[in-house]
Amino acid sequence: MKKIAVLGAGSWGTALAMVLADNGHEVRLWGHKEAQIKEINEFHTNIKYLQNIKLSNMIIGYTSMKEAVNQVDAVVLAVPTKAMREVCQQVREYLSTPTLFVHVSKGIEPDTHLRVSELIEEELPESIREAVVVLSGPSHAEEVSLRQPTTVTAASLNAEAAEKVQDLFINQHFRVYTNTDVVGVEIGGSLKNIIALAAGITDGLGYGDNAKAALITRGLAEIARLGSCLGANPLTFLGLTGMGDLIVTCTSVHSRNWRAGNMLGKGMKLEEVLENMGMVVEGVRTTKAAYQLSKKLQVKMPLTSALYHVLFDDVNPKDAVDELMNRSKTTELDDLSKLLGERIR
Amino acid sequence: MKKIAVLGAGSWGTALAMVLADNGHEVRLWGHKEAQIKEINEFHTNIKYLQNIKLSNMIIGYTSMKEAVNQVDAVVLAVPTKAMREVCQQVREYLSTPTLFVHVSKGIEPDTHLRVSELIEEELPESIREAVVVLSGPSHAEEVSLRQPTTVTAASLNAEAAEKVQDLFINQHFRVYTNTDVVGVEIGGSLKNIIALAAGITDGLGYGDNAKAALITRGLAEIARLGSCLGANPLTFLGLTGMGDLIVTCTSVHSRNWRAGNMLGKGMKLEEVLENMGMVVEGVRTTKAAYQLSKKLQVKMPLTSALYHVLFDDVNPKDAVDELMNRSKTTELDDLSKLLGERIR
Repeated sequence: MKKIAVLGAGSWGTALAMVLADNGHEVRLWGHKEAQIKEINEFHTNIKYLQNIKLSNMIIGYTSMKEAVNQVDAVVLAVPTKAMREVCQQVREYLSTPTLFVHVSKGIEPDTHLRVSELIEEELPESIREAVVVLSGPSHAEEVSLRQPTTVTAASLNAEAAEKVQDLFINQHFRVYTNTDVVGVEIGGSLKNIIALAAGITDGLGYGDNAKAALITRGLAEIARLGSCLGANPLTFLGLTGMGDLIVTCTSVHSRNWRAGNMLGKGMKLEEVLENMGMVVEGVRTTKAAYQLSKKLQVKMPLTSALYHVLFDDVNPKDAVDELMNRSKTTELDDLSKLLGERIR
Repeated sequence: MKKIAVLGAGSWGTALAMVLADNGHEVRLWGHKEAQIKEINEFHTNIKYLQNIKLSNMIIGYTSMKEAVNQVDAVVLAVPTKAMREVCQQVREYLSTPTLFVHVSKGIEPDTHLRVSELIEEELPESIREAVVVLSGPSHAEEVSLRQPTTVTAASLNAEAAEKVQDLFINQHFRVYTNTDVVGVEIGGSLKNIIALAAGITDGLGYGDNAKAALITRGLAEIARLGSCLGANPLTFLGLTGMGDLIVTCTSVHSRNWRAGNMLGKGMKLEEVLENMGMVVEGVRTTKAAYQLSKKLQVKMPLTSALYHVLFDDVNPKDAVDELMNRSKTTELDDLSKLLGERIR
């Protein structure tokens, strides 16, 4: 039995806390909202985020960061990407020994273009950081909380740390694979939101499954192309954190990115959509970052580029799709071979 | 303008005839049902297969095979796999010069384990066969008939023939890529039905998107593993005819294979399901063929194997899923690397 702090009591943090509790660990679930933490401790529920779910007594809620991370074996960072730096800054006040960090967040930091594990490493000095492991894969929190079969990947440059995380989380409902390709896992998880946004647009335009399947397939190829340039193993994009997560995100109407795209496809302007959603649409920020990176690294990303022009240059979505359909004739494998670059003999 | 015979007036043959007519070709649509062909010629509709669709005057229906294939530039074979040999035997009676053949069928012949292009080549002598090209990809016929954006791949060992087919079909709604990997395209198209059947089972068991995404991802990896052993380029499985078609099939409730799987997941026995469906469930035959091939070639296919035991050895579907979730811990890339075999440095 280990002591583990899960920071962030949203749906994903809570579902992961349940997996850890199922595995017999002592779990400290930290959140900053008094009422929510009280609900967790008194009623063993977290209704706002996971309806009809009873939490184990092994999960104790905390609002004090100091108490939550005191002498824990591992810290799971389950806060939104934009809050990550601030939470790390709080955590480091209270740790004195090297601790295992697991993060489950997605995105690329605007301007710096840093991945989440990179910004965590900037904020947490080596003296208190045993390793940073990213846990990612096709996983709706609701399904995990219902103990439905789920598979994810734990990735770290430190293979031993990835295996420790595999051991913490793996059980008969929650299968964990390991991987050392942190770049591939993080880029796949972040850039899928671009394709989810685009899938929402084609659905909003009234196009069907054929268009969406093409988009997902060709979209993953260009994500893999950019990821490879950034040092990822292209094979990672064929795995759970690439293809797997992309499928879940693009075929679920619950995805915030899909919903934003859907409104764009129906003719709304970006400002209206963002106002309407009243919250951050990660895919919009990620499209900008990926577009900038593709220009800088000279990687061909026709879908990302088309989406960028729809979002920021007022190009009509239908015209963008028509243009994509009318590019010059090509062979399929030319494009896909470039995906795996020089790795293919 | 070319003269093209489309043999088979079901939904897919008719939709492809529409694409060819849109491109200005003279299309002869052959079917053996008098009433249906009369409907096509008199009312320019094919209501049973494509509702609310008006066909072009460029599409002429034929019940005479002799007239349909007389002096055509190309023959499109759009009949079910099990009727393919018989139709080829009819065609060869009436051809005297080398003709371009395009097939759009999926499946592996029971017992012989031949792919569709292989059995076509057995039936059509070289003297009347310029080349055989397979046209495949994520494409519901209904969407193609509505001119919604669709992408497919034309594959042939004869690259020039594949380009001819690309030229015949490509237009602003229907984008055609070429590929020379016939094995990969045909194996991907056939074996996707195994995964569709399995996806129906997990849905029938009440499992969610996480399980389905895992199944599709890991399923594609094992299809690619078998395909590579049979001589396919593993990259083809990442393309439209692999991943693309798999996504469309597994996420559509219209798929016959998915529906059969769904009944199995809900507790029906195979015999009841087949009786209930009243028609061939391609995935059942394909599972047997793939299982036999995996044993013969010693390729690890845990999902196919589990499905085989559910179908033919009366294993309970839930037990099969549980067993898959409880295999020994592993790294993700080990499996995926094997997918690309020795092609990776």
